[in-house]
Amino acid sequence: MIDKIEIIKAFNHRHACKVFDANKKISDADFSFILETARLSPSSFGFEPWKFLIVQNMDLREKLKLITWGAQGTLPTASHFVVILARKQKTMNYDGQYIKHMMKDVHHLTDDAIQKRSGLFKTFQDVDFNLIENERAIFDWSSKQTYIALANMMTSAAMINIDSCPIEGYKAKEMEKLMADDFGIDHTEFGVTCMVAFGYRIDKQRNKTRQEINEITRWFN
Amino acid sequence: MIDKIEIIKAFNHRHACKVFDANKKISDADFSFILETARLSPSSFGFEPWKFLIVQNMDLREKLKLITWGAQGTLPTASHFVVILARKQKTMNYDGQYIKHMMKDVHHLTDDAIQKRSGLFKTFQDVDFNLIENERAIFDWSSKQTYIALANMMTSAAMINIDSCPIEGYKAKEMEKLMADDFGIDHTEFGVTCMVAFGYRIDKQRNKTRQEINEITRWFN
Repeated sequence: MIDKIEIIKAFNHRHACKVFDANKKISDADFSFILETARLSPSSFGFEPWKFLIVQNMDLREKLKLITWGAQGTLPTASHFVVILARKQKTMNYDGQYIKHMMKDVHHLTDDAIQKRSGLFKTFQDVDFNLIENERAIFDWSSKQTYIALANMMTSAAMINIDSCPIEGYKAKEMEKLMADDFGIDHTEFGVTCMVAFGYRIDKQRNKTRQEINEITRWFN
Repeated sequence: MIDKIEIIKAFNHRHACKVFDANKKISDADFSFILETARLSPSSFGFEPWKFLIVQNMDLREKLKLITWGAQGTLPTASHFVVILARKQKTMNYDGQYIKHMMKDVHHLTDDAIQKRSGLFKTFQDVDFNLIENERAIFDWSSKQTYIALANMMTSAAMINIDSCPIEGYKAKEMEKLMADDFGIDHTEFGVTCMVAFGYRIDKQRNKTRQEINEITRWFN
């Protein structure tokens, strides 16, 4: 049980930190902790359709910087910089190898249970949401799951006073090429969904702006 | 600063809780706290493209149950049941009224800053990601943001020993109709992106299964 006031404090501490103190490094223990909260994040059907690239090499960061307008201040100064990949259709289709591997080797389901779940997953993909045969929609669906991990990483970081900045601003086509050429990523399997930089703030945080609670909620009693 | 061990404990406490103790209710203070962590969640450009419907009316829950195969156990037993909506193209296009309202009235930007940001947002939507003129892609992009709020709600709930279950399993077409007919939702403005039930567990939690950290990360040093 964690104190609610402390949790809300962390949520208010978190902000999109556009530039970090380049001299302050996150300890290995703290960064492992942040990654662990990504690993423990839930995902649709428990398929964990993600991969986290931790880019510490400054030459690679320079290359990213050329095509990532949303990370001009964070790429050079972040203690840790993470590119988040989401799985594409090739591996996320209901009858694909990766899905079978997850159910068998990670979830340890019986053959019977695998058959049942596969059927459910097929209905979900095919009948309910028209994901099959729609490259972009299935990638976006994988991407949604990665935003759960993204959120948890930022929140857990804030809870130990580590700052972060989520990044969606980059040139998509150029990014795909860079991932293939310099990061060895098979673009038929994975695509970049977003990025997140971690470090310690150097500037003061601006005031948080949000809609009021009654503007974003509606009760049906 | 919150203790890392306590945070990881909460992440392990959280699981997809398929049925709740129908007799245990979450206090108003605790549920307000959970909603507050959704409200404080970050989103792309800070546009908060979400709405949270809290469905406490049991007749409405019955209607949801008919088309939501992923919530058969949670709809009748959850202390609080939330349908999360994401904004659609009509309100999320770079030149739409809602976007202008957010920049002016919520972010309190100057006219100059609004013009700058609008340009950036247009480039993001149009040039980088081909979101404009793609109903589904722009809705999926809004939806991704809602998964940040979803994650934060589940995590903050777990931190105060409240259980949750995220739900993607429903009939999409029927859901759109139900939202229009019984919830008064304008389907040109909002669509259902996912749901999340909250309450207190009645069954023991199963063992957590996850890939190992080295299977989901790659370091570039």
